Amino acid sequence: MKTTHKQNLLASVLVCALTLATTVARATTDPLPSWNDGATKKSITDFVAKVTKEGSSDFVPPEERIATFDNDGTLWCEQPMYFQMLFALDRVKALAPQHPEWKTKEPFASLLKGDVKGALAGGEHAFLEIIVVTHAGMTTAEFEKIVADWIATAKHPKFKRPYTECVYQPMVELLAYLRANGFKTFIVSGGGIEFMRPWTEKAYGIPPEQVVGSSIKTKYEMRDGKPVLMRLPEMNFIDDKAGKPVGINSHIGRRPIVAFGNSDGDQQMLEWTQAGDGARLMMLVHHDDAAREFAYGAESKIGTFSDALMAEAKKDGWKVISMQDDWKRIFPFEK
Amino acid sequence: MKTTHKQNLLASVLVCALTLATTVARATTDPLPSWNDGATKKSITDFVAKVTKEGSSDFVPPEERIATFDNDGTLWCEQPMYFQMLFALDRVKALAPQHPEWKTKEPFASLLKGDVKGALAGGEHAFLEIIVVTHAGMTTAEFEKIVADWIATAKHPKFKRPYTECVYQPMVELLAYLRANGFKTFIVSGGGIEFMRPWTEKAYGIPPEQVVGSSIKTKYEMRDGKPVLMRLPEMNFIDDKAGKPVGINSHIGRRPIVAFGNSDGDQQMLEWTQAGDGARLMMLVHHDDAAREFAYGAESKIGTFSDALMAEAKKDGWKVISMQDDWKRIFPFEK
Repeated sequence: MKTTHKQNLLASVLVCALTLATTVARATTDPLPSWNDGATKKSITDFVAKVTKEGSSDFVPPEERIATFDNDGTLWCEQPMYFQMLFALDRVKALAPQHPEWKTKEPFASLLKGDVKGALAGGEHAFLEIIVVTHAGMTTAEFEKIVADWIATAKHPKFKRPYTECVYQPMVELLAYLRANGFKTFIVSGGGIEFMRPWTEKAYGIPPEQVVGSSIKTKYEMRDGKPVLMRLPEMNFIDDKAGKPVGINSHIGRRPIVAFGNSDGDQQMLEWTQAGDGARLMMLVHHDDAAREFAYGAESKIGTFSDALMAEAKKDGWKVISMQDDWKRIFPFEK
Repeated sequence: MKTTHKQNLLASVLVCALTLATTVARATTDPLPSWNDGATKKSITDFVAKVTKEGSSDFVPPEERIATFDNDGTLWCEQPMYFQMLFALDRVKALAPQHPEWKTKEPFASLLKGDVKGALAGGEHAFLEIIVVTHAGMTTAEFEKIVADWIATAKHPKFKRPYTECVYQPMVELLAYLRANGFKTFIVSGGGIEFMRPWTEKAYGIPPEQVVGSSIKTKYEMRDGKPVLMRLPEMNFIDDKAGKPVGINSHIGRRPIVAFGNSDGDQQMLEWTQAGDGARLMMLVHHDDAAREFAYGAESKIGTFSDALMAEAKKDGWKVISMQDDWKRIFPFEK
């Protein structure tokens, strides 16, 4: 008991020293170095300053500082297509030798020729067929390992980097800045919840329990005397558009005070965030930098930023982030 | 900037002083005063000591210290019937003046006469009819207010205390003890997720985002230009028995290393917890104290602790907590 007591004291002293050092450092260091100085950056730091200032009328207690972030196109890149679709494509290729019939069977035949557009011509049915063979029929542990192996080795077709390096450096800094100010940061994505969880902690500092996403059904059963969760070929929940507030309510049970998105899929999340009482911050990332990333918007099928969304943003005071103007650096691998 | 810097320094110094004071206090105070000394209490403190000891082969990093707790019969009382059913009964009474037809229509007619058994004779259909009229057809915000108002005023029929005082003091201490040792504590209950969230933070220190439970479907829609989530008359998920590992995986995305339950509904949660690698702690509360609480087990319809569960506990090394022998005090209101 005495030794433990001494160790605890020592640990406390060390924590104190670190806290003091961090406090001193924080006062002189810009927490958002990859954001250009200007109105956008200022609207973030002003918001954080006012909701964290005790005694201020805008003060929000730490437990209510919930911040939700879309993932595809908001925290990491989503072009030339959603990375989860690239994952599914790689899985179809890896599984093809066990399925000779796929050579002539759609959507697999097109997919194996690299023709994703042709494969998806079959609409929702084709999409679900791809999901079923690549995402279901295995245990949650097996799927987690497949995703972890893929994310550790696969590379982005344009940037030739692992996908977890194709994250937006300004957003990684923003997540850390919010957490340092007492916020709890959540992902709320249309992407698969189990596809994201194996790598979000390392990439963003967001633990599995703070990831909300789309899901397929799972079933508890015994296999060789050991319990497993089997992934079933049936959708459970689609965490997109009007599904986002439903997912937020189901997983978090509190309304966010901060929400970041980049497309029509995020509209309802931002509306839901704004409809609460008190200070709120809603922002949309706009992909307008063809030189450093990709430029797309209303016309794009992936990450559609429609004119209607732009109009709603203007009307409701949601800030639009110009990647070209507001971000000094986009990817961590840039100089 | 300079003032903020000084304020931050001051805050850090204060935090340090508090941390040191707490450390000193902790070395001399029993964190589980309502547990009798003995094998049960020791198995808890031994487990916590070994998984938090750095360098030990049983060490578990803080982010993986997930502890899940059933609610009814594990954290609070569940007799003479589930408190959520008593809530529904009170709601039926409150709504009866607007529904004169209930006087002759089952299950409401029986319910209004106080005959719950008769009302539930209609089986699952009757149960769902009660849930629909008391839990659906309103917004999530409206339901939250109804629950908050009820929990603030309703009293337990035997103990004549608010339901949030009918919590088990030893378990409240255990939750705090685990959190002080870096654990994240979750509720995983067959009860309604939105029924629990309005009061779990105050009663147990468990925030809404760490509550997993059964749910009905909700739908995002605009009402008078404001977004709301409407509660629909349709079950979404039943977080009981084989549903508990599914709910844990869906909400937490990590396997617990600690799980506490009290009935057959918790069997699969404990199996799922045990099936992971490394040190694990599984325990079952046994209601064997008719004098201070209630005594029931295999024969009870509420909180059934079957002989099969007892056999599995013995075989798998799950500890059974005797409320009579292991708990010095059961409720916070006891002297």
